[in-house]
Amino acid sequence: MELLETTIKDISPQDKSWRDRATARLEQLCMPHWALGRLLDLAQELAGMTRSLNPPVARKVIVTMAGDHGVVDEWVTKYPQVVTQQMVHNFVNGGAGINALARLADARVVVVDMGVSGGLDELAASGKIVSKNIGAGTQNIARGPAMTREDAVRSIEAGIELARELGSSTDVFGTGDMGIGNTTPSAAITAAVTGSLASEVTGRGTGIDDNQLQHKIKIVQKALEVNQPDPADGLELLAKVGGFEIGGIAGLILGAAALRKPVLIDGFISTAGALIAHALAPVAAEYIIAAHRSVERGHILALEHLDKQPLLLLELRLGEGTGAALAMNLVEAAARVLSEVSTFDEASVSKEEG
Amino acid sequence: MELLETTIKDISPQDKSWRDRATARLEQLCMPHWALGRLLDLAQELAGMTRSLNPPVARKVIVTMAGDHGVVDEWVTKYPQVVTQQMVHNFVNGGAGINALARLADARVVVVDMGVSGGLDELAASGKIVSKNIGAGTQNIARGPAMTREDAVRSIEAGIELARELGSSTDVFGTGDMGIGNTTPSAAITAAVTGSLASEVTGRGTGIDDNQLQHKIKIVQKALEVNQPDPADGLELLAKVGGFEIGGIAGLILGAAALRKPVLIDGFISTAGALIAHALAPVAAEYIIAAHRSVERGHILALEHLDKQPLLLLELRLGEGTGAALAMNLVEAAARVLSEVSTFDEASVSKEEG
Repeated sequence: MELLETTIKDISPQDKSWRDRATARLEQLCMPHWALGRLLDLAQELAGMTRSLNPPVARKVIVTMAGDHGVVDEWVTKYPQVVTQQMVHNFVNGGAGINALARLADARVVVVDMGVSGGLDELAASGKIVSKNIGAGTQNIARGPAMTREDAVRSIEAGIELARELGSSTDVFGTGDMGIGNTTPSAAITAAVTGSLASEVTGRGTGIDDNQLQHKIKIVQKALEVNQPDPADGLELLAKVGGFEIGGIAGLILGAAALRKPVLIDGFISTAGALIAHALAPVAAEYIIAAHRSVERGHILALEHLDKQPLLLLELRLGEGTGAALAMNLVEAAARVLSEVSTFDEASVSKEEG
Repeated sequence: MELLETTIKDISPQDKSWRDRATARLEQLCMPHWALGRLLDLAQELAGMTRSLNPPVARKVIVTMAGDHGVVDEWVTKYPQVVTQQMVHNFVNGGAGINALARLADARVVVVDMGVSGGLDELAASGKIVSKNIGAGTQNIARGPAMTREDAVRSIEAGIELARELGSSTDVFGTGDMGIGNTTPSAAITAAVTGSLASEVTGRGTGIDDNQLQHKIKIVQKALEVNQPDPADGLELLAKVGGFEIGGIAGLILGAAALRKPVLIDGFISTAGALIAHALAPVAAEYIIAAHRSVERGHILALEHLDKQPLLLLELRLGEGTGAALAMNLVEAAARVLSEVSTFDEASVSKEEG
């Protein structure tokens, strides 16, 4: 609990004076006023986060957190639970979507076992993944809490530790997830925090049909009724209707914010982690960049709660950190516009008339 | 005229058998069905264009076409005409938005004088830009045609020549523009082709205020009334209400399509060029990828006419090829997903149940 508390205390808002300096320069760039739109908004944010007019963005890491979920007993997904474990092997072998997109982004992928059921010990022992395993999957949230409050703290602190360990060699963090069943706890968290109905935040996940979707909505509703989480208490939310990888993502966000480093959140599950981080420390949201808007229907409500506009709209619904990897290019683009484009005076270009 | 005619004859549709082969593989990737959404749609397109399951995308060029416009006499823009020329110098010096974003994309920038008013001879002589200068700016379209039909052919053929010259060292083309006043002819082309009112397709360009916008709408309307362009005749459209750089862009698109290479179109002006190319050879559109949707209000109507969904929505309105440079990352991402991500079988991951 101490690490969590000190980390939260370490998070300060973006630096307004550096934001203002960036704005002043961006308004003078040799182009019509603010003609690169959201790229310039992002450049402002990066300056405020990093206190620099030359925000460092070269060293990128995607942290892909894996965990299992007891709620898979409730017919909420199309894939067997063993796929979580199999996909961790796929990440290590470099054959997954996140591997291809992280290679393109020149980002390192760090795979973390936050609570996968079954044996990943060999991969952890050989250093191919990081083990922060809190347990062999969560309990079934349709019948009781996902985990104890102690395990909620442990999972968040595992994410903070990772941010600290990676921080000295990382400029930009990206979050990612893998966990069969994890859109169900993410929907429950989103419903609780945004005050929405289960039907408004529950989507098709890996691609379930209408019948299964109706059933999944009922399970999300049941999880909320059984657990009655207090949406203002981040730890309770996570313990009652969360997941180990969701806690890890929340911790990574808090840790990145404490280091004043930008963190790109991926899709619906990562944003559920961001909702937990935000409940614990609202100011942490000032270091969050929303990579994309997922197909998953609750995502937009979660992003609105965080007051974040997603950068990409590409109908992604894979997770793993794929959207975060894609959006890293835009973060680098924003930094380059701030540091490399000439002003009107520098370029000797005539300003507007009159 | 011969080059234009043979080029149009050389354009064939995407190859359906290669598209189908790509689709078959993409449907087997170790992820929920089509979980990378529009990236997978794009991968299909690339396979169909290039006849490959490993579409070449590494060698990228942004061709930024510059031209001046007689219609600047009509108070349609905020900046003096000399800025076109000054910005060409800025491109050569590497200080413009397109330079920063092309460097990030690892794309070469080729700057072309299609018809800039004033002296760029020195830059052309030293090989820093390509000169295809058709004339010192177009005539004022509010009073008569922009150029002769012969010059329309010459400007398009200049673009085709560039595509051919660059083709042997280029996998992906991007279009860009520079030309003070060029949203006005682009609006006129878009209105004529889509059958829209001038008020529906005329935007603020470099950032004009409400009064000047109302005036600009009247000028676009006047250009259409004075010239009465036949929207089905691409050459007439370009000659009557176009511009030299718009013709160059149309030619580049036709040339790229004839080479079976993807061409990313940038914003409103590039899309006006694409409308000309499409009027001349509808099948050329099968090689066009719409990089982004600009703030400029007519852009969405022009894209709809081409049946193109833009990849990025970032409130850009700079031109130069900046949106095309940003979207190159997504083209590379799509190609990598097709060629680098494992299938379920290759990765030994369990498929969905039932």
